[in-house]
Amino acid sequence: MKLPGQEESDVSSASKNVPTGELDSGPGSGLSPDGPLDTESRELEVPKDLPLFIQLNELLGWPHAPEWKETGRWVLFEEKLEVGAGRWSAPHVPTVALPSLQKLCNLLAKGLVLLDCPALSLQELAEQVTRVESLSPELRGKLKALLLQRPQHLIQTPCTSPCWRSAHLREASQEEEAPLKEQHQNPLRQKFPPGAEAGAVLAGQLGFLEQPLGVFVRLRDPVVLGPLIEVPLPSRFFCLLLGPPTLGRGYHEMGRAVAILLSDLQFQWRVRRASSLHDLLAALDAFLEEVTVLPPGRWDPTARIPPPKCLPSEYKRLSSQLRVAKGPSVRRRTLAEDRHGRRQHAANPELRRTGRLFGGLVQDVRRKALWYPSDFLDALHPQCVSAVLYVYLATVTNAITFGGLLGEATDGAQGVLESFLGTAVTGAAFCLTAGQPLTILSSTGPVLVFERLLFSFSRDHSLDYLPFRLWVGIWVAIFCLVLVATEASVLVRYFTRFTEEGFCALISLIFIYDAVGKMLTLTRAYPIQRPGSPAYGCLCQYPDPGGNESQWTSTNSKDRDDILSMDLGLVNASLLPPPECAQRGGHPRGPGCHTVPDIAFFSILLFLTSFLFAMALKHVKTSRFFPSVVRKMLGDFSSVLAILLGCGLDAFLGLATPKLMVPREFKPTLPGRGWLVSPFGANPWWLSVAAALPALLLSILIFMDQQITGVILNRAEYRLRKGAGFHLDLFCVAVLMLLTSVLGLPWYVSATVISLAHMDSLRRESRACAPGEAPSFLGIREQRLSGLAVFILTGISIFLAPILKFIPMPLLYGIFLYMGVTAISSIQFTKRVQLLLIPAKHQPDLLFLRHVPLSRVHLFTAIQLACLGLLWIIKSTPAAIIFPIMLLGLVGVRKALEWVFSPQELLWLDEPMLEKERNIPEKGMEPEYSFSGSDSEDSELMYQPKAPEINISVN
Amino acid sequence: MKLPGQEESDVSSASKNVPTGELDSGPGSGLSPDGPLDTESRELEVPKDLPLFIQLNELLGWPHAPEWKETGRWVLFEEKLEVGAGRWSAPHVPTVALPSLQKLCNLLAKGLVLLDCPALSLQELAEQVTRVESLSPELRGKLKALLLQRPQHLIQTPCTSPCWRSAHLREASQEEEAPLKEQHQNPLRQKFPPGAEAGAVLAGQLGFLEQPLGVFVRLRDPVVLGPLIEVPLPSRFFCLLLGPPTLGRGYHEMGRAVAILLSDLQFQWRVRRASSLHDLLAALDAFLEEVTVLPPGRWDPTARIPPPKCLPSEYKRLSSQLRVAKGPSVRRRTLAEDRHGRRQHAANPELRRTGRLFGGLVQDVRRKALWYPSDFLDALHPQCVSAVLYVYLATVTNAITFGGLLGEATDGAQGVLESFLGTAVTGAAFCLTAGQPLTILSSTGPVLVFERLLFSFSRDHSLDYLPFRLWVGIWVAIFCLVLVATEASVLVRYFTRFTEEGFCALISLIFIYDAVGKMLTLTRAYPIQRPGSPAYGCLCQYPDPGGNESQWTSTNSKDRDDILSMDLGLVNASLLPPPECAQRGGHPRGPGCHTVPDIAFFSILLFLTSFLFAMALKHVKTSRFFPSVVRKMLGDFSSVLAILLGCGLDAFLGLATPKLMVPREFKPTLPGRGWLVSPFGANPWWLSVAAALPALLLSILIFMDQQITGVILNRAEYRLRKGAGFHLDLFCVAVLMLLTSVLGLPWYVSATVISLAHMDSLRRESRACAPGEAPSFLGIREQRLSGLAVFILTGISIFLAPILKFIPMPLLYGIFLYMGVTAISSIQFTKRVQLLLIPAKHQPDLLFLRHVPLSRVHLFTAIQLACLGLLWIIKSTPAAIIFPIMLLGLVGVRKALEWVFSPQELLWLDEPMLEKERNIPEKGMEPEYSFSGSDSEDSELMYQPKAPEINISVN
Repeated sequence: MKLPGQEESDVSSASKNVPTGELDSGPGSGLSPDGPLDTESRELEVPKDLPLFIQLNELLGWPHAPEWKETGRWVLFEEKLEVGAGRWSAPHVPTVALPSLQKLCNLLAKGLVLLDCPALSLQELAEQVTRVESLSPELRGKLKALLLQRPQHLIQTPCTSPCWRSAHLREASQEEEAPLKEQHQNPLRQKFPPGAEAGAVLAGQLGFLEQPLGVFVRLRDPVVLGPLIEVPLPSRFFCLLLGPPTLGRGYHEMGRAVAILLSDLQFQWRVRRASSLHDLLAALDAFLEEVTVLPPGRWDPTARIPPPKCLPSEYKRLSSQLRVAKGPSVRRRTLAEDRHGRRQHAANPELRRTGRLFGGLVQDVRRKALWYPSDFLDALHPQCVSAVLYVYLATVTNAITFGGLLGEATDGAQGVLESFLGTAVTGAAFCLTAGQPLTILSSTGPVLVFERLLFSFSRDHSLDYLPFRLWVGIWVAIFCLVLVATEASVLVRYFTRFTEEGFCALISLIFIYDAVGKMLTLTRAYPIQRPGSPAYGCLCQYPDPGGNESQWTSTNSKDRDDILSMDLGLVNASLLPPPECAQRGGHPRGPGCHTVPDIAFFSILLFLTSFLFAMALKHVKTSRFFPSVVRKMLGDFSSVLAILLGCGLDAFLGLATPKLMVPREFKPTLPGRGWLVSPFGANPWWLSVAAALPALLLSILIFMDQQITGVILNRAEYRLRKGAGFHLDLFCVAVLMLLTSVLGLPWYVSATVISLAHMDSLRRESRACAPGEAPSFLGIREQRLSGLAVFILTGISIFLAPILKFIPMPLLYGIFLYMGVTAISSIQFTKRVQLLLIPAKHQPDLLFLRHVPLSRVHLFTAIQLACLGLLWIIKSTPAAIIFPIMLLGLVGVRKALEWVFSPQELLWLDEPMLEKERNIPEKGMEPEYSFSGSDSEDSELMYQPKAPEINISVN
Repeated sequence: MKLPGQEESDVSSASKNVPTGELDSGPGSGLSPDGPLDTESRELEVPKDLPLFIQLNELLGWPHAPEWKETGRWVLFEEKLEVGAGRWSAPHVPTVALPSLQKLCNLLAKGLVLLDCPALSLQELAEQVTRVESLSPELRGKLKALLLQRPQHLIQTPCTSPCWRSAHLREASQEEEAPLKEQHQNPLRQKFPPGAEAGAVLAGQLGFLEQPLGVFVRLRDPVVLGPLIEVPLPSRFFCLLLGPPTLGRGYHEMGRAVAILLSDLQFQWRVRRASSLHDLLAALDAFLEEVTVLPPGRWDPTARIPPPKCLPSEYKRLSSQLRVAKGPSVRRRTLAEDRHGRRQHAANPELRRTGRLFGGLVQDVRRKALWYPSDFLDALHPQCVSAVLYVYLATVTNAITFGGLLGEATDGAQGVLESFLGTAVTGAAFCLTAGQPLTILSSTGPVLVFERLLFSFSRDHSLDYLPFRLWVGIWVAIFCLVLVATEASVLVRYFTRFTEEGFCALISLIFIYDAVGKMLTLTRAYPIQRPGSPAYGCLCQYPDPGGNESQWTSTNSKDRDDILSMDLGLVNASLLPPPECAQRGGHPRGPGCHTVPDIAFFSILLFLTSFLFAMALKHVKTSRFFPSVVRKMLGDFSSVLAILLGCGLDAFLGLATPKLMVPREFKPTLPGRGWLVSPFGANPWWLSVAAALPALLLSILIFMDQQITGVILNRAEYRLRKGAGFHLDLFCVAVLMLLTSVLGLPWYVSATVISLAHMDSLRRESRACAPGEAPSFLGIREQRLSGLAVFILTGISIFLAPILKFIPMPLLYGIFLYMGVTAISSIQFTKRVQLLLIPAKHQPDLLFLRHVPLSRVHLFTAIQLACLGLLWIIKSTPAAIIFPIMLLGLVGVRKALEWVFSPQELLWLDEPMLEKERNIPEKGMEPEYSFSGSDSEDSELMYQPKAPEINISVN
C-alpha cells in the first residue's frame, strides 16, 4: 500500500475522503499494456487512472478590464489556447521550464495550503481562499469579487462556429453556481467517464497585490464550481497563483507547472493522500526526481512535441523507482518479460502436444464448445453490422478476382460462379465449425499458384482435369486428417519469421510477375499496329463468286468515294466491317479483319488505373484529408472503388476489352459438366493412386498456408479470450477440401489479410480518451455471426453474377498487382532489402539495427534473397510443382542459419525457434545486459505490440 | 563583456589562458542567423561557437577485465554507441534525468576541481588527477594504470567496415602519447576547423573505490591526450567520475550529464572563465535555470528526439536572460525584428525612388559596375562547373518544351530552333549586362500564354503574324523603357503574396488545362477504333480503271487466302497498306486508310509516363535512398530523365506518335522567311500603331512577371552581397524584346524556378558541421560566368537539334503538366485550399492557423478562389487577351481586402503592403503582444528564413 518515499505520510487519515474503489485497485487498466505480470503487480501498486481535467484560467487585461480567460487545459497532454485564432492547439507533450517549477515550490511553501477544504460552492471556496493574513479586508473583497467573475471559455460545439462564452458583468449571484448550459453542451464532456474530477488553476498578474499569493486547495468533496471549469465536472483541486506584475508571465508559467504536476498520475496519487504541506512538497520532489531535462542550447523550449505513440506505463515508472532501491535485476526481468510477451504466440497452450491420436482435435472441440453459445450472443453489437459490410465487399472482390484468374488459368474448369459458390459454402461452414471463427476462408495465392501448375501438368499429359483434381483433393483430405490425428499442428513452432517472409515474398513475386505477364500476353492477343505493318486490309467477300461489271460501274458512277457500301464488281466483295459482313452472309477476309486496334494500350491504361488508384486510395487512409470515417471507407474499399472506376472508364469508351467470363445461367463454367465431378472421367484408374503424389505437395502447401495464418491470427497482441483451434481448423479445411473437390469448386484455406481485416473491424477500444491520447485496445469481438452473415451475403450475390461480365480483365490484373505489391511491401524482409540502398547515415532507427551489425543484417538479407532466387528458379523449371517442398526447405535453411548467426542476432532479425516446447532460455540469450545494459535505453515504444508486419496469403 | 549573473567572477584572471581572438568576438557567425542586429548585439555578447568534441569513455567489464570503451560522443547532439550493432546511433537531442545533474553537482562539489592544470600529457594528467587525499598510494597506482589504459574506439573509416581499435595490453609507454594512426584516419577529423578542442569524460563503476571520485580538470594548454579521444584534437577539459558499484548506471548518466553541460555553449563560456569551484557550480546553476523539463508520465525518457531543423540561437537565449532582467520589451522588439527580417525584401534599398528620369537605372549601373570585375573572378570555383551542367540541362529541357509548344501554338511561326537560338542569344546578353546576373532568362508561362492568344487573334483577323508581332515587340520595348525612366519598378512593393499567388495559380492552372487539353486534341486527331466503327476498310486503287478477269482468277487459284498482294481483278485494286500502295502508283481509298490506330492510347501512356516519372524522381530527392549525390542528381534531372525514358519507350515500340517538328537545316521553322522579320509584310500600315494596344497588355504582363521574379530572387534570405538591379534588369529585357521581335524569336523574361535552381546550385555552405547539424547557409556565389557558360552551351546545342525530332510531343505535354502541378503545389494558397478538406483536428500546425481564426482563413481562401474563377472565366472568353490587366487587378483586390481583414490577419495570411516606403508600423500592427504575449511561445523554427514558397513563372 505504501509507495517508496511516502513512508512518513499517514495514508489512512488522508485517504478517508477519497471514495473507496478508486484507489486500492491494481494496475490501471489502460496504462499498463505489458500483459499479466502478476508476481510483480502485487508488489507495485499503480494508481488507477482517474482522468483529471485541469484547466488554467488566466487573469488578463489588468489593470483596465481584468478578466479570466481559459488559456490552457490538460488531461494527458496540454492544449493551449491559440488566442489569435480562437482555437485549441493540437494536443502536445507539456514542457515547462525548471525555474517555474522551483518558483511554484517556493510560492506554495509560503502560501496557503488547504488539504480538506469543506467548501461546497465557488462562493464558499472564494471565502476560504481569501482568508490570507497578508491581505487587508478591502483587498479580500476585491479579490473575492474577482474570483467570482465568470471566466471566458472557448467551447467548440460541434456543427457551430466556436463561441466565446464571456460575461463582463459581475454576476456573482447564487444562481450562477449551477452549471451553465454551455458547459453541458461541451462535447468534451462525453470524453469523461463518471467519477472524473476536475482541477482549476487560476493564475495571473494582479496589480493591487503587494506580494505573490499562492493557494492550493484540495476539496473534501468534489463540487461543481459554477462556471469556473468549461466542463461541468466536480472539482477536486483548486490552485490560485496571483501576484504583482513584476514576474511577467511567470504566473502563467507557474500555473502551467501546477497543471502539469496535477496531470501526472503519481503526483495526483500522492496529493490525494497528502495530509500536510510537507507531503505536497515531497510529491513535488518525487516528481522532479523522475523528470527528464532538455538542454537549452539544443532544444527550443517553445517547440511543441506531438504526443508519443505510446505513453510510458505507470507500471514501468514504479518498477524503475523500485529498481533504484533494489538494483538492476528488476529491470532485467521486466525487459525479458516484455520480449517474451511480444512473441508469446510461440508458446500458445493450444500448441502443446497431448500425445494421443486426435488428442489436439478433441481438446480443441472441447475448449471451443464451451464458448459456442457466446459465439452468437457476443455478436449482438452494431459494430458487427459494419464489419459484415466491410468484409463482405472484400470477400466479393476476392471472389471476383480469384475466380476470374482461376477461370483463365484453368481454361474455365473453374470460374467466377464456382468461386462465389465455393466461397459462400465453405466460408459459412467454416464459420460455424472452426476453431477460430474469425478466420475468413478464401482461395489464396499459394493454392491458386498450385492449381495453375496442376492444370498445366494435366493439360500437358492430356488428362481429364476435374476427375484428376478430385483424386488430388481426396488424398489431400486424407493427408490432412493424418496431420490432425498426429497433432502435426504443434510443428508451427518451427515457422519463424524467416519462413513466413520467404513464403510471403515468393507468393507476392508470383503475383507481380503473373499480373505483368498477363498484361504482356494481352498485347500479343491484341497486337499493336506499327506503321508499315500489313494489317490494314480487310475485305468482305460473298460466297457466290462471279458477277457483272455493270454493278461496279453503276456504283462507281454515283459516288466514287462511297466505297464502303459498294459491292466490288466481279469479286463480289465489299469493305463492310466484319460483323456486318457476316450479317450479310459474307466472309471477312484479310489480315486486318481479326485485329482489334487500341485494345492493347487501353488494357495497359486500365491496368495502371486500377493499380495506381487502389494504391492511392490505400494511402488516403493515413492522410490528413477528410473526416476519419470517409478516409477509412476510401482506404478500406480501395480495390472495389478502383474496379468501379475502371469499369466506368471502360463502359464510357465502349471498347471491346477482354471481359470476365461469366456463365449466363446457374451452371458450372465448363460447358457440359454437372455439379458433381465424375470420379474417373477419361482418366485411367491408376491415376487415382498417382494423384497422391501431387496431393502430398498440396498438403504441405495447405498446411503451411493454413497454419502460418493461424499463428498470425492467434498472436497474443490481439488478446483473444476464446483461444485458438489449430487442429480443429485443419480438420475443417480437410473436410471442405473434399467437398470442393467433389463439386469442382476452388480450394479454400484461411486467408491472412482478409481475416486480419475482419478482426480489425471488430476491435473493441476504450471510448473515453483524452485529447491526444490514442484509444487503447481492449480486445476483439470474437463471435461466429459476422462471418456467417458475410458468406450468406456472398451466396446471395451469385445471382448478381451477370453484372460481373462488364468487368474488364486488365482491371483484375491491376488489383492482382496491387495485392502483390502491398503484400511484399509489408514484410520486414523488404525493409531490409531497402536498407541495402540506403546509406548508413540515413537509415531509419530500426530496433534490429541498434543491436546487430549492419554487415550481419545485410548477410541475413542476402541469404534470404538467395533462397528466394533459388525458389524462383525452381518455380520456373518444369519441376515447378514441387515448390511446396522447397518452401518447407526454408525451415531447414532457418535451422542451418543457427550455425552462421549468433542467437542474439537471430533474436533481433528473426524469432527464436522453439525446441521441444521449452521457453525462451533466459540465460545466455541476452548477454548484452551483462555487458553494458545499453538495452535499457531502448524506447518502450519499440517493444509495443503492434499489428503483425506480415500479410502472408495475399488475397 | 560580462554575462548577466557572472558579475562576481573575475573574468580577466580566468580568461588569460584562453587564446585571444576566440573569446572576445561578436555573435557566433553560425548560430545567429537573425540578420544584423547591431544595436543589441553590442549589448549582448554571444560566445563564439568553437566546436568542442566531447567523448564519454566508460569503464566496462569490471571486475573481470576492466576496459575503457567510448560509448557516447557530443558536438551539438548526442551520438550513442549501439553496442550490439557496433555503430553510432543517429544524432539526437541529448536528454538527461534531472537527478543525474544533481548527483553530478554533489559529486563535483565534494570532488577535485583543477582549473588551470598545467599537465602536458596524459601521464602527467593521470598523475595530477590521482592525487586525491582519500586514496591510498596503492589505489592511486591502480587508478593511474587504469587511466593510461588504451580505450576502445569505434572508428568508421570510409570504404572499410567499422573496426574496433582495441588494446587489452597496458601499453602506458611514452610513445603512446602521440596520436595514433587510426585517430588521424578518423573521417570525423575533417569536420573540425583548426582551433577545435576536445573534452574527455571518463565514467564507470570501479570496485576498489570505497567512495565516489569526481574530478574536473580544465587544462591550461589544450593537449592531445594520446589515444584517449578518437579524434586527435587537443583536449581542454577532462572529467573523471568513478565510484563503487552501488550507483549502477549512475556514473554513466553523470558522465552524460557532464558531456551535455560541456556541449552547451554558454556553460562552456562560463567554465572557460571559471576561477573556482564556485564558478563551476554557478555555471551549472545557470544551465539549470534555462532547462526545459519533460514530465515523466507523458514522455518516455528513453525516446530519442531527432535534431530540430533549427537550433535556438544563442542570441535569443541571451536576450531572454536579459528579458528576465529588463522586462518583456526586449523580447517584443526581437520578435518584431525577426518578422521584419522575414520580409526585408519589401524594403530593398534598390527600390527607393530617386525622383530623377532614369535615376534608378543610373544607380543600378553604378552599383553593379563596382562589382563587375568580381563577377568574373568569383566564378573561379569548381562548384560553378556543376552549376553550369545542371542549369544547362534545365535550360535545354525548357527550350525544347517551350519551343515545341510555342511552335505548335503558332503554327510554326516559332519553333524549337528559334527557341534554342533565342535562349542562347538573349540569355548570354542578359548575363553580361543585367543587374542580377544569376537570373536565367526563359520564355515563361505567362508570355507563352499571351503569345498563343496573340497568334489566334491575328489568325482570326487574317493578319501577317510576325510583322504584327514585331510591332508589338517594338511598342513593348518603348513602354518598358518608359517604365524604366519613371522608376516604375519601385511599385513592386505593392506585389504581396496575394498577387504572386494569384499570378502563379492562374498560370499553373493554364499549364495543367493546356496539357490535358492537348492530349484530348491528340485523341481526336488519332481517333480510337470502337467496335462497329466503320473505319476498317482501306483499298489500294490503281489509277487505270479496267483490267481483265484472268488476273483475279489466276491469283485466286493459287492461294485464295493471300489476298494481300493480289490485284483485285477488274477494279484494279489491292489491299496493300497505304505507303506501299502509293509507292506502286495507286491511291489508298477508304475510311481506314487515314486512321492510325493505337496512337491515342499510346500517347496517353507516354504523357502519363513522363508526368509520373518526373514526379517520382522529384520525390527521390527527399527520400532516404541512395547517396545524396545520386539522389540530388535524379531529383534535379527529373524532367530530362523522364523525357529520355519516354523517348526510349517510343523508339522501342516504333509507333508513329506525333513528334517534335525540327527543321532539317539552320533556318527559321516557318518556311520561306528569313531571319529578319519584314516590318509590314501583308499588314496595313496602321496596324503598326494599333499594335500598341496589345503591347500595353504585354508590357503589364512582362513587368509583373519580371519584377515578381526579381523580388523573389533578391529576397533577404539569400544574403546577396552585390545587390539587385530592378531597373537595369527591366531595361535589358526591353532591349532584348526588341531584338527577339526583329528576329522572330520567342520573347524572354526572367524565370523564377530555373533562376532559383541556379542560385541553389551556387549556395555557399559551412562545410565543417557537427553530426546532426544542418550545414549553415553562407551566401551565394554571385557571378556572371556560370550563366554565360550555360547559354554558350545552349547555343552550341543548336547543332544537336536534329536529334530532337525523336521526341514525341505527348512527353512534352507530360512535362508541361508536371510543371503546372509542381508550381501550384508549391504555393501557400494550395495549402489553404487543402485545409478546406482537412478536419480541424488533423490540420497541420501552421503559423497562420495559430493566429487567425479558421473561418477567416477560409474566407481569405474563398476570396482568392473567387478571383481565380473570375480570371479563368475572362481567360475563356474572347476577351482573353486582356488578362494581364485582370492580373494587375489582383493588386486592387488585395488593397480592398484591407476593409475585410484586420492588419494582423493580413500580416499572417499575406504580407504587409508597404505604402510610400514606410517601414512596417511597429505599433498597432501586432496588438496581440499587448494582450497576452502568447506569441512568444511560437517556436523560433517558424520564423526561420526558408526557400521561397512561390514558383511563379513555371518553367
